[in-house]
Amino acid sequence: MSNHDRDPILLTPGPLTTSLATKAAMLRDWGSWDAAFNAVTARVRGKLTDIVHAADTHVCVPMQGSGTFSVEAAVNTIVPRDGHVLVLINGAYGKRLARLTELMGRRTTTFETADDVPTTAEDVDRLLASDASITHVGLIHCETSTGIENPLREIAAVVARHGRSLVVDAMSSFGALPIDARTTPFDALIAASGKCVEGPPGMGFVFVRKSVLERCAGNSSSLALDLHDQWTYMERTTQWRFTPPTHVVVALDAALDQYVAEGGQPARLARYAANYEALMAGMRELGFRSFLPPAIQAPIIVTFHAPEDTKYAFKPFYDRVRDKGFILYPGKLTQVETFRVGCIGAIGPAEMRHAVNAVRDTLAEMGIRSVAGGAARAAA
Amino acid sequence: MSNHDRDPILLTPGPLTTSLATKAAMLRDWGSWDAAFNAVTARVRGKLTDIVHAADTHVCVPMQGSGTFSVEAAVNTIVPRDGHVLVLINGAYGKRLARLTELMGRRTTTFETADDVPTTAEDVDRLLASDASITHVGLIHCETSTGIENPLREIAAVVARHGRSLVVDAMSSFGALPIDARTTPFDALIAASGKCVEGPPGMGFVFVRKSVLERCAGNSSSLALDLHDQWTYMERTTQWRFTPPTHVVVALDAALDQYVAEGGQPARLARYAANYEALMAGMRELGFRSFLPPAIQAPIIVTFHAPEDTKYAFKPFYDRVRDKGFILYPGKLTQVETFRVGCIGAIGPAEMRHAVNAVRDTLAEMGIRSVAGGAARAAA
Repeated sequence: MSNHDRDPILLTPGPLTTSLATKAAMLRDWGSWDAAFNAVTARVRGKLTDIVHAADTHVCVPMQGSGTFSVEAAVNTIVPRDGHVLVLINGAYGKRLARLTELMGRRTTTFETADDVPTTAEDVDRLLASDASITHVGLIHCETSTGIENPLREIAAVVARHGRSLVVDAMSSFGALPIDARTTPFDALIAASGKCVEGPPGMGFVFVRKSVLERCAGNSSSLALDLHDQWTYMERTTQWRFTPPTHVVVALDAALDQYVAEGGQPARLARYAANYEALMAGMRELGFRSFLPPAIQAPIIVTFHAPEDTKYAFKPFYDRVRDKGFILYPGKLTQVETFRVGCIGAIGPAEMRHAVNAVRDTLAEMGIRSVAGGAARAAA
Repeated sequence: MSNHDRDPILLTPGPLTTSLATKAAMLRDWGSWDAAFNAVTARVRGKLTDIVHAADTHVCVPMQGSGTFSVEAAVNTIVPRDGHVLVLINGAYGKRLARLTELMGRRTTTFETADDVPTTAEDVDRLLASDASITHVGLIHCETSTGIENPLREIAAVVARHGRSLVVDAMSSFGALPIDARTTPFDALIAASGKCVEGPPGMGFVFVRKSVLERCAGNSSSLALDLHDQWTYMERTTQWRFTPPTHVVVALDAALDQYVAEGGQPARLARYAANYEALMAGMRELGFRSFLPPAIQAPIIVTFHAPEDTKYAFKPFYDRVRDKGFILYPGKLTQVETFRVGCIGAIGPAEMRHAVNAVRDTLAEMGIRSVAGGAARAAA
């Protein structure tokens, strides 16, 4: 930590910088059985559902834990024990989805492209046509490991045409990128409190097609992660089945009020896009190159090639930037040395510019002159 | 809610009333990858371990989600796929433990006593002697559904003598009742942030015997709820495997500082015992009878017989007491009409007396004269 008590700006894929109003909502204690708290839960579920225009077709089932807990809950609940899941992979989160699906005993087939190659609708069309036993398709909308955006809308259309069921991990895209359940068919879509809706971390939620969820009793081999059980209990009692993270729930409620006041998803995307532009313009000035081409780069998190200068090492670079008040994120690629910078959270282009300036100062302190890692490596 | 913005006092089994210092710790954002946050995690694990004197034998593995998530994680991780668990039941949490064990596909045998009858060491001795296939014993230390305390120490000794493995749900007792790993052998003991350590809800933790956990790789059929994976990753990286509930973790850290400053477990128990005495003295004055005899009643949560007066109904009674600023808890017994009052949280005997006075005023408002439900029913 820096030696003052101001929080660093979190330029990470989450937890994010949240607003003071969001954090201040946690200054109260709530009884989890009380009607006042249950009204908050209902309000949060409704506001989340509105973001993906799913009120007529889907229910929002909140779930305690990190986003991965909700991903596991979705697979365990939606996929029957004898189901067969095709998992589309181009990064760490796709691999994780495949791993947890397999661990729970569901038949799993994977289709993997390189970290910088989106899965296409044509890929999925071919894969589904060639294997009629596939019942479900698992897709990561925006792979946080690089920042790549997969074509959700096109893939959803293909999966629907084949009559299969789509499960979407929209962890880092939900709330920022447009997702419309009226035109993009999915049976389950998963996100979490601590991402682009800018709440604190501690709970996830799954939008499940109601007609599907109604048939999912008994699928889950987990009590805690059973979305059907959570949903039916909540419908009957208005309460969470097990102790909810009350402070996180009320803070998410406050964050969603701010989300709506800002102008909803288009406004959130516009701010993040402005953050992304400020970051890219500044980093380009310094000589940095992003790992992904702009066409497949979501304005959520950007992977940069590390400087090729021998004086560079991530740890001291990270520490020095952090001491200036900005928390960067390590890369997650095995083949190429990279680091990541998030564009999301309760921050604007001014903070992004400050961060770029801190990176510039850090490069100078470390005596790093040759920054163009990407170009050199691309040529290698 | 009452029409002022003061929080009601939560007289429930959790979430509890927390201190302002604990809530204020949530006014900061932390990067989950940053060393400053990971130092908090390490500190929290250490302080929790000290409470049960387990530093030489056990590791503390934190887990996102409610307490039940940690219970499920403990069973899924500690019990091999071909294990056989004897679950000791005298209330709803014992039933839940049996249900989740069975759901995960582990062989489960149950031994059930009435809600007001503790399991005895003799029971366990007999059960283990008669079935050599039992590998694990699951025990609820303090059943929140009534408030009954089961004899952990005696049962632990018997389980150890038989060479079986003990898994203890100490959710509502940890931090208040004395538990000493040096003299009470257990392989896993589970509790959560939002109970007697007076943090916010949102995470649990399991103390697992290190020599046991080392052999538990591959047991869990869940990725999210795998304690072995969580532990080894945390040991290697200092980080949580998946996004931690950062605000909850730092608030728990603050709550544990206050716990130590108050005088640790003996002081916490003394305050709760004083709360219990103030509650019981006041409720007796009003004619209420507790469901359990004092000998088996932990000073955590008390089940009271509902008034026998025909003018009584829980909902209006609860609403009126809440409007005066105190949140009671419904009963969980099927045979007898009851309600519950918690003695735990950042409150003292003065708050308990205020609550009793609010109950007195409520009885008068509702015109309830005959309160002695228990006596009448006991005679019936």
